[in-house]
Amino acid sequence: MADKRTGGLVDIIAGQTAISTVGKKGRDLTYRGYSIHELARLCSFEETSFLLLYGKLPNEEELSDYRSRLIERRRLPAALYTILEQLPADSHPMDVLRTGVSALASFEPEGYERGATAVAERLLACSSSILLYWLHYHRSGIRIDTRTEDGIAEHFLMLLHGRKPDPMHTKALDVSLTLYAEHEFNASTFAARVTTSTMSDFYSAVTTGIGTLRGNLHGGANEAAMELIEAFSNPEEAEAGVQQMLLQKRRIMGFGHRVYTVSDPRSDIIKAISCKLAEHADDWNLYDISERIELVMMRKKKLFPNLDFYSASAYRMLGIPTNLFTPLFVVSRLSGWSAHIIEQRDANRLIRPNAEYTGPDRQAWVPLHERG
Amino acid sequence: MADKRTGGLVDIIAGQTAISTVGKKGRDLTYRGYSIHELARLCSFEETSFLLLYGKLPNEEELSDYRSRLIERRRLPAALYTILEQLPADSHPMDVLRTGVSALASFEPEGYERGATAVAERLLACSSSILLYWLHYHRSGIRIDTRTEDGIAEHFLMLLHGRKPDPMHTKALDVSLTLYAEHEFNASTFAARVTTSTMSDFYSAVTTGIGTLRGNLHGGANEAAMELIEAFSNPEEAEAGVQQMLLQKRRIMGFGHRVYTVSDPRSDIIKAISCKLAEHADDWNLYDISERIELVMMRKKKLFPNLDFYSASAYRMLGIPTNLFTPLFVVSRLSGWSAHIIEQRDANRLIRPNAEYTGPDRQAWVPLHERG
Ligand SMILES: CC(C)(COP(=O)(O)OP(=O)(O)OC[C@H]1O[C@@H](n2cnc3c(N)ncnc32)[C@H](O)[C@@H]1OP(=O)(O)O)[C@@H](O)C(=O)NCCC(=O)NCCS
Ligand SMILES: CC(C)(COP(=O)(O)OP(=O)(O)OC[C@H]1O[C@@H](n2cnc3c(N)ncnc32)[C@H](O)[C@@H]1OP(=O)(O)O)[C@@H](O)C(=O)NCCC(=O)NCCS
Repeated sequence: MADKRTGGLVDIIAGQTAISTVGKKGRDLTYRGYSIHELARLCSFEETSFLLLYGKLPNEEELSDYRSRLIERRRLPAALYTILEQLPADSHPMDVLRTGVSALASFEPEGYERGATAVAERLLACSSSILLYWLHYHRSGIRIDTRTEDGIAEHFLMLLHGRKPDPMHTKALDVSLTLYAEHEFNASTFAARVTTSTMSDFYSAVTTGIGTLRGNLHGGANEAAMELIEAFSNPEEAEAGVQQMLLQKRRIMGFGHRVYTVSDPRSDIIKAISCKLAEHADDWNLYDISERIELVMMRKKKLFPNLDFYSASAYRMLGIPTNLFTPLFVVSRLSGWSAHIIEQRDANRLIRPNAEYTGPDRQAWVPLHERG
Repeated sequence: MADKRTGGLVDIIAGQTAISTVGKKGRDLTYRGYSIHELARLCSFEETSFLLLYGKLPNEEELSDYRSRLIERRRLPAALYTILEQLPADSHPMDVLRTGVSALASFEPEGYERGATAVAERLLACSSSILLYWLHYHRSGIRIDTRTEDGIAEHFLMLLHGRKPDPMHTKALDVSLTLYAEHEFNASTFAARVTTSTMSDFYSAVTTGIGTLRGNLHGGANEAAMELIEAFSNPEEAEAGVQQMLLQKRRIMGFGHRVYTVSDPRSDIIKAISCKLAEHADDWNLYDISERIELVMMRKKKLFPNLDFYSASAYRMLGIPTNLFTPLFVVSRLSGWSAHIIEQRDANRLIRPNAEYTGPDRQAWVPLHERG
């Protein structure tokens, strides 16, 4: 069997990026030089995604134009709605999103008239539409109108719940989208860059991103964290349960990170949001269980929560079903992937590493009828 | 702008593999220790794909069972046919294949009852069905039966042309599928491994592979080579044209390779096939043009043809439309991807490299209404 230590590209510099960094000490996070703390506190996900996509914060006019373009692009081609109706009701929502984005390429291919940023904006505008049209059609047979006049966070909540969301909920989701937007060469972004490096198209790279984000070691961790947290009815149970899992050498999803070693700066922000939502709902159970798990993980493993851990309880308190957590990560990370696809193309070289061969030496040929 | 020399993972060992190697001198190619020359000459693509998937050449019984399973899995779920009907007639066939495979995940998800090799076999069996059902429906409104009782190469040609192919054509395509089946950490395979490394599902990894193969620097090169070759009406024109392109510093698709430095061992095999097909058809034009381009490239750039170059003329002589060349590469490479997905899982570690940050230092916050 292969040695897993040689895999993983741990500490290998796979290229350059000007989009984001965790800083020299690996404790910060900036997008295009702006601290994640400021972005989360002071601006909307629309401003953040514009920053990632266009390299600068929008001024008032740019922002207003950008918002309008996103709103105009919320509806899907009629045939794509039909395709979503054909996908089974019990599909994995990440399958739905991957298929929906992949299919959109056939209707609106990238080309001279539809460049990279146009496709990026289109996907930012309509990924929630894909997901929630499919959801409502299969849940209740209703063909919802996927256009609403709101920002991305509110659009998602509006379509999901069918009513104007509590502004505090919209704000919470909006901040969460900013936190999830970008993280340099994480696995899905890196995979999207590999796809881009062959000179493939934008949709192919995004489809790669979606498929890669899904795994539990990456974006799928927010759903896995929720399942863990909800398996316990109180902090004491959680403490005992997690200790038991650690004894069994099981991985606790939502903890640890390849790049951060001391803490994930995004975790504090989403934890505060989760706390506020608990207070707002006057229901502390999930939050208390989460905090206890955090405590145990620090004490027993010196592992800190990453962004996915407190995102779980926050999303639950927004009334979001667990299997839409990772798809929401997609809605946000589309902005980071898009910026990286464009950056990769700017100074492209085929990403094609070598492998260490550990297989058999030259084998002698055995004809079919002599094989054992 | 980033320095493209730092990208590309050139000469970086990204992991171990026991599936294939170009050998110590980088001039050979073996799958599981068997030389590509022997595989191409002595066995079918079914045997080759079984070897890749299961690590051993099949005996007679295993081969016969494997062939039967593949034949049984040629038809698609009814709703998937409907989805293919919804995709526009002018879709890029790689979009169709990527969407078809992605959608199949919703109907037949990977899981306890349907493991990795079952999904792999299913995709090997039905990828031609996806492609050619879509093609005929949009070309002539006919809903073809995608089941035939043949091997993979013959199945493709049967569905494409609607009649039993010349056995020599079937053999030519079969060998080409063996040549395209596997090539260690090429970009699409590596990207599929990155997807797998997050613990994502099989279909996601394959969808990544398809999207990555498509680019002109990778699988798309066979289509680009065809366009080049067909742009000339005779060898003299080709010589002048290619020299002109080289003066303009343009890349000639189908030449050069990241790993091979002297020659691509697969090129000799496909060149001989292209030659035989020209002889069979008694039409040497494409072959002669191709040979002249080869000559010019060696003389002017010391670059040799890779597998994609002579695949182009060979596929044209099989009556295959250019835009199905890269999809055919998929039909074959599914076997290599599948082997790598399984191998990656066997000793998994998240593939997550680092990036060198070249962006702006910390930027001071500017409120929206003060931005320029
Ligand atoms: C993110 C992650 C994949 C980073 O992985 P990595 O850099 O490859 O580190 P490794 O997987 O080699 O882990 C190093 C050690 O810490 C342990 N570890 C890491 N994360 C752990 C976790 N969440 N729970 C329990 N143990 C963990 C590993 O078991 C390993 O111990 P070992 O050396 O005794 O086997 C890993 O921390 C993880 O799996 N976390 C849970 C999934 C998650 O939350 N992902 C979202 C990331 S934003
Ligand atoms: C396969 C390929 C991407 C390998 O790329 P790589 O290892 O990154 O090598 P580079 O792209 O850096 O090329 C090295 C040099 O050779 C030149 N070169 C490589 N392939 C060339 C080609 N097909 N035509 C003209 N010049 C070529 C490059 O222009 C470069 O010259 P420079 O240093 O003066 O810029 C490259 O050879 C290529 O683009 N080939 C054409 C596409 C193709 O056939 N792909 C299928 C591969 S199986």
